[in-house]
Amino acid sequence: MIEHIEKQSGRAFKLKKGQKLKVIDPLGGQVSDMVLFNARDKREKISSGKTLDFEETILITAGHYLWSNRSRKMMKILEDTNGRNDFLLAPCSPETFEIMYSHQGYHPSCFENLYTNLERFGLQPDDVPTAFNVFMNVQFAPDGKLSVLPPLSTAGDFVLFQAEMDLIVALTACSAEDSNGGSFKPIHYEIIE
Amino acid sequence: MIEHIEKQSGRAFKLKKGQKLKVIDPLGGQVSDMVLFNARDKREKISSGKTLDFEETILITAGHYLWSNRSRKMMKILEDTNGRNDFLLAPCSPETFEIMYSHQGYHPSCFENLYTNLERFGLQPDDVPTAFNVFMNVQFAPDGKLSVLPPLSTAGDFVLFQAEMDLIVALTACSAEDSNGGSFKPIHYEIIE
Repeated sequence: MIEHIEKQSGRAFKLKKGQKLKVIDPLGGQVSDMVLFNARDKREKISSGKTLDFEETILITAGHYLWSNRSRKMMKILEDTNGRNDFLLAPCSPETFEIMYSHQGYHPSCFENLYTNLERFGLQPDDVPTAFNVFMNVQFAPDGKLSVLPPLSTAGDFVLFQAEMDLIVALTACSAEDSNGGSFKPIHYEIIE
Repeated sequence: MIEHIEKQSGRAFKLKKGQKLKVIDPLGGQVSDMVLFNARDKREKISSGKTLDFEETILITAGHYLWSNRSRKMMKILEDTNGRNDFLLAPCSPETFEIMYSHQGYHPSCFENLYTNLERFGLQPDDVPTAFNVFMNVQFAPDGKLSVLPPLSTAGDFVLFQAEMDLIVALTACSAEDSNGGSFKPIHYEIIE
């Protein structure tokens, strides 16, 4: 069954070891931030630093694993029809919009959409790590300069993950203008046995 | 007073807002992993994802800030005589040597040297985030491939930081062969009022 994440919102759910998770961009050009926790010990969580270290690349795609802070495999990426994801940048937060967008007042954010959905699993805002940003198109220049460009994903692109341990997963339909080509769209996902 | 961190070891200490910390490579070619915690609320800590996002670059050096998971400035980098640091890779851990070096048995690691020194501040191994790796020379190719090369630092090179809040700081003299050109040397530091 395909689940629908409304634009600028999020979801959290359990995924058992061996189950597959398909994260789908139904309309194209939309980012989804994903964080992972070990369902049996929530102090173990997805780690950008460990993943980039063990996989020896900035660009994580099919064939790579997502690793935890305890140096264990959390997920394998089985397929990636788009092939561009980001694992450098933290989820957009209220401060992202204040500092980088000079936005005044409330703005939805992936950070809020992650921690509010993770609350029922006993997780707090401070527990949210740097997310694996599915479909996010962050380009890096030889001098290190980072640019957030519109996603290259087109309607129906997906990334298929397989759980390497029992997981709590949180996913968003990202809320940041720059990350989504100036528009906001839903994200779909499917849990496959 | 210049403090000496023995090769393959670490230290942790408090640094008050406004104080400066000079991290020195006394012999050249040696990496120092650094993590930061808010001394008044240890759930706030250094964040690679937030720093790369707000500074819009992979290469963090003089003029940049180190940011926390709560989107606040923890340190400013005032000077950097070497100019190459890494903020992509997690501290080397026992698993680094098992998985990447096929090493059997005990091996000292930055991860161990961080958490054992942070223990007296009430911090646990799972609290250790991705470190800011002073002097570490991680090159990235246009296809994202990462290479850990010997540091470019020569004897006496230093990075001068200033605390933007009261901090707990942990520093190492890194234990990983590849990060230090195949040898292990001490790190010096100085707290300046």
